[in-house]
Amino acid sequence: MKHTVRFQPDNITVTVDKGENLLSAAAAAGVYIHAFCGGDGVCGKCKVRIDKGEVSSGKANLRQEDWNQGLRLACQTTVSSDLVVTVPDKTTAGGKALKRKPKTTRTISARSLETLTGRWNVDPPVTKLYLELDPPTLEDNISDMQRVMRGLRAVMPDSLEPSYDHPELIKVLPAVLRESDWKITLLLLHGRRQEEPDRIIDVEAGDTTARLYGLAVDIGTTTCSGVLIDLNSGKVIAEASAYNAQIRYGEDVISRIIYAGRPGGLRTLQNKVVATINAIIEDICRTMIISPADISYIMASGNTVMSHLLLGLDPKYIRESPYVPSVSQFPLTKAAGLGIQAHPSVRLFLYPCISSYVGGDIVAGVHAAQIAKSELVTLFIDIGTNGEIVVGNKDWMVSAACSAGPAFEGGGIKYGMRAANGAIENFYIHPVTYDPMLITIGRIKPSGICGSGLISVVAELLDSGVIDQQGKFNRNLDQPRIRDGRDGWEYVLAWSQDSLIGEDIVITEVDIDNMMRAKGAMYAGYQTLLESVGLTFADLERVILAGNFGAFIDLEQAIRIGLLPDMDREQFYYLGNGSLLGCQISLSDVRRFRERVQVRQLITNMELSENPEFMSHYMAALFLPHTDMSLFPSVRDRLADRN
Amino acid sequence: MKHTVRFQPDNITVTVDKGENLLSAAAAAGVYIHAFCGGDGVCGKCKVRIDKGEVSSGKANLRQEDWNQGLRLACQTTVSSDLVVTVPDKTTAGGKALKRKPKTTRTISARSLETLTGRWNVDPPVTKLYLELDPPTLEDNISDMQRVMRGLRAVMPDSLEPSYDHPELIKVLPAVLRESDWKITLLLLHGRRQEEPDRIIDVEAGDTTARLYGLAVDIGTTTCSGVLIDLNSGKVIAEASAYNAQIRYGEDVISRIIYAGRPGGLRTLQNKVVATINAIIEDICRTMIISPADISYIMASGNTVMSHLLLGLDPKYIRESPYVPSVSQFPLTKAAGLGIQAHPSVRLFLYPCISSYVGGDIVAGVHAAQIAKSELVTLFIDIGTNGEIVVGNKDWMVSAACSAGPAFEGGGIKYGMRAANGAIENFYIHPVTYDPMLITIGRIKPSGICGSGLISVVAELLDSGVIDQQGKFNRNLDQPRIRDGRDGWEYVLAWSQDSLIGEDIVITEVDIDNMMRAKGAMYAGYQTLLESVGLTFADLERVILAGNFGAFIDLEQAIRIGLLPDMDREQFYYLGNGSLLGCQISLSDVRRFRERVQVRQLITNMELSENPEFMSHYMAALFLPHTDMSLFPSVRDRLADRN
Repeated sequence: MKHTVRFQPDNITVTVDKGENLLSAAAAAGVYIHAFCGGDGVCGKCKVRIDKGEVSSGKANLRQEDWNQGLRLACQTTVSSDLVVTVPDKTTAGGKALKRKPKTTRTISARSLETLTGRWNVDPPVTKLYLELDPPTLEDNISDMQRVMRGLRAVMPDSLEPSYDHPELIKVLPAVLRESDWKITLLLLHGRRQEEPDRIIDVEAGDTTARLYGLAVDIGTTTCSGVLIDLNSGKVIAEASAYNAQIRYGEDVISRIIYAGRPGGLRTLQNKVVATINAIIEDICRTMIISPADISYIMASGNTVMSHLLLGLDPKYIRESPYVPSVSQFPLTKAAGLGIQAHPSVRLFLYPCISSYVGGDIVAGVHAAQIAKSELVTLFIDIGTNGEIVVGNKDWMVSAACSAGPAFEGGGIKYGMRAANGAIENFYIHPVTYDPMLITIGRIKPSGICGSGLISVVAELLDSGVIDQQGKFNRNLDQPRIRDGRDGWEYVLAWSQDSLIGEDIVITEVDIDNMMRAKGAMYAGYQTLLESVGLTFADLERVILAGNFGAFIDLEQAIRIGLLPDMDREQFYYLGNGSLLGCQISLSDVRRFRERVQVRQLITNMELSENPEFMSHYMAALFLPHTDMSLFPSVRDRLADRN
Repeated sequence: MKHTVRFQPDNITVTVDKGENLLSAAAAAGVYIHAFCGGDGVCGKCKVRIDKGEVSSGKANLRQEDWNQGLRLACQTTVSSDLVVTVPDKTTAGGKALKRKPKTTRTISARSLETLTGRWNVDPPVTKLYLELDPPTLEDNISDMQRVMRGLRAVMPDSLEPSYDHPELIKVLPAVLRESDWKITLLLLHGRRQEEPDRIIDVEAGDTTARLYGLAVDIGTTTCSGVLIDLNSGKVIAEASAYNAQIRYGEDVISRIIYAGRPGGLRTLQNKVVATINAIIEDICRTMIISPADISYIMASGNTVMSHLLLGLDPKYIRESPYVPSVSQFPLTKAAGLGIQAHPSVRLFLYPCISSYVGGDIVAGVHAAQIAKSELVTLFIDIGTNGEIVVGNKDWMVSAACSAGPAFEGGGIKYGMRAANGAIENFYIHPVTYDPMLITIGRIKPSGICGSGLISVVAELLDSGVIDQQGKFNRNLDQPRIRDGRDGWEYVLAWSQDSLIGEDIVITEVDIDNMMRAKGAMYAGYQTLLESVGLTFADLERVILAGNFGAFIDLEQAIRIGLLPDMDREQFYYLGNGSLLGCQISLSDVRRFRERVQVRQLITNMELSENPEFMSHYMAALFLPHTDMSLFPSVRDRLADRN
């Protein structure tokens, strides 16, 4: 349910979900409110007055007289109806709200996702078929398996004869047939191609057609996520995620590859990711009160290193030039053979990879977004340690990975951290006083800055003139938060008393420099790929942001620092976890399932690491937003406005 | 090398191989010679005079004066050149040679086998392909497997893209490619159908195309036999066989099924047959100085129970009416997965079975003999505990099993034994004195009677009037060997001093009765099958005898007792071990390999066990040769001759 919130005195209205936090609503509206403690209620700065409408609010850190006057702490208040809210002068520290930012980013709603993915059918590659067979007699004593085949032919007369190559199946078949009085349910796996016959992969006693589940798994370097789908309805019925238990052996793929080279290392890493998937399965099954044996198949995707490690393939040559993976189209694998807690019949499909650093997660995302079916020239971006980029449409696609570095995952940033509770994820600065408005994940005191927070901080510092386009602090501003610290110039995001870690949380020039390298690598990647096919940014008709990180990026801020191209905001789409979504769709619809290999074959990869054009674009991008300001007209205008 | 031996005074000539035993040569010629000790040289009865030519001979049990006169013991003498041999009056005990029997049976020669099997190609379903690949560069860094696929496409541009689903393959591929400097040999398995793509099943460093071997295995209830084939030349290069180590858990399939039902029994039996196959592989590899890893694939066949046990399938329902096997078309199986000492890539193919008691060994034999390609209406027979019968031609085939009982394997016969050293395998009787001429396996003193010996004994006893057509002894003959013994009337084949076991070896009326039941079941089987398709014996154009036992049957004797139909002797063929031969051919020629499943599908099985027609034919067949003598005109004439 939606409500409108009108902020006074600036008369800015925003539409939010019921239950939305009022501080976040203000941030969304571009209304600046003092907020130093991340939303924890301790700094007591974010007082607003509720003029009209219902809210739900806590009283912490608010004097009784304030309460009686209708004042509330925005960070402790949630929206219960349409509201009119006045932000007192004191709260905005100057009575001047920020200019309202255009609300251009398309949110992840079912409708907008469908414009990307299209509709898919509930016609999964694994199906169940209930059969009632005639019991054998002396006149009709063909083998049990022949009887099953004959029963199948009777109901599917026009299909190719299914195959069966699963020894466990024929071991259990005689007992299942007899205990069920010759009434059984077959589990059929459709062929990888239309012309390929089905395969019988399991048999169950009685009619079990109502129980048919598939698991989609995104195997991330940091986090693995699983979604259980009821394949009869196509509905998601449970979700779970867990940190990839490999993480203790290295944060990124390179350190995992190194660890895999140690004695027993490969085996350990394989076991760890399998344990992670098992934890997700257990979690889901506990929630849904189903047995892991009820999961009939698994569709997974991951980057090339994660895919190799899951299958126990040595990723060694992925790290060494010329960066060659063992395999890009993974063979059909039995989940139980890997150690996954699944019925022996369960196949685990892995999305094919493109190259050593453009993996199955990207193919799954490109597939989910159906780029290969669209006329629109699309830039597909997944930002992380390795930023992966795909450019193309239904006629051609090129891909590349650019080593953005770990800045967006908190690496190389003094107070950088993962997107966990306490991470500053959203930041606004008061244009006059340069005081911060912090919003943290979990609305607790800040303990650091996550990737989306970093973008937010740098964009706001730039916008307010606290830093210049080279990322250097303005040494002349009168604000104690801007200071020459131990590691050079810095801005204090949170004083020690407002921080969870008991020390000042700052962003330094070195941090900003690292972030600029990261975003510069991404942007240089877009340019190099486009040029490789003779295009420019002007030819782009659509940008799709994939990945969990992508989903939290503020579009305006990301464009302002030069991470994303300066295009019509209506041309941007948030896909969310495209890797997981691709798996979900392939799991549900056999036509999509069969498409996924062709999608991968349409994509030509380009190696950027030693490419001179890339290097030159990269150097030019080490500026906020870019040395060539003609590429960023909206930012140019805004910065000019400011001056 | 062949030599002729002319026996005097009857002037009967026979052609034998150089090195043939002279007693056996006489038997083949139908020349009766006293021989009581089975060919051991101890009875000293079989003296003959070498008139012309070279022999190699021992002096044991021959007086010097006899030696000086040119006398030799036939059983201790082998043929070294063309010979003229006189059989002295004393040696034939009456100077009267047996009537020469017509030499009608076609022997197992390469030529005559080829008239059955046709020529097959050396174009095996598993092939090797040597590839020299371009090493990867930054501009060309597709995955190792893609590089292999591209190399394959370059040399096989018109083929379907091969598949690969063998996880070990992609695990070793990167190392193999790099250590071999990108020069590799692929092992390819052709599809089961023409339209099915090849499958890459292994990769080896360098050019190993010269080493390509396949193993054919016949998995018998008693004996397993293996043949190693060089798949580059199609030549058999080594053979080995071993008793099926399951034998200690039961002699026949029924006792094995019972044992399989005990706790751990199935697993034990599977392990034992796997150990037997491993022993054969070791034996062959030791002989040929190759590694088991050089064997690229295995084609096996066995009866339905043996096939089930090898794959670890419970044979329980095979024994219970209505006699249903779990599966008749066996799934593709990895040999190593069963515990067979083979490279992990090696597939073990099992010939499909027809029914619970007509197994893959029969399909392999029918396939080897190419009955499904012939116009000739053929009766295919494999005689053992379970006699299996197939009738048909290229248009239709019907099969049945008839429980002949164990008589032909030595069971239910007082001195019955397997076809091992000391077993009487050939027997002739002197038509006047009723003295025996015994030939044993291994030419040692007799210790019992094997199946072919039993046929020989009963046929000779009938022919000489020692027994009548009901199998009862003529109580009026003046020969101490014919006596009323402890178990009723019997004939002494060997006195205790001439026997290995130190007691009289006899054949009793009970023995003869059991043998009649066995042959009666077989004959009733032929009749019932023929009638089921509206035919009679007159419609038969060919009889093929399969199985090791079949190869040792004397055609005349077998017809005389009513085990085989009384047809033109030219219409009989000995196939030998058709099960092994079928495996060999399928191993060598992919077209035959693909045919084998269709052959099985052409055959319709008939259950005889509770069939009233079968029972009535069976009762009529409990006579020597049959109650309906019009079915055995040649035997009728011969018996009439005698009287």
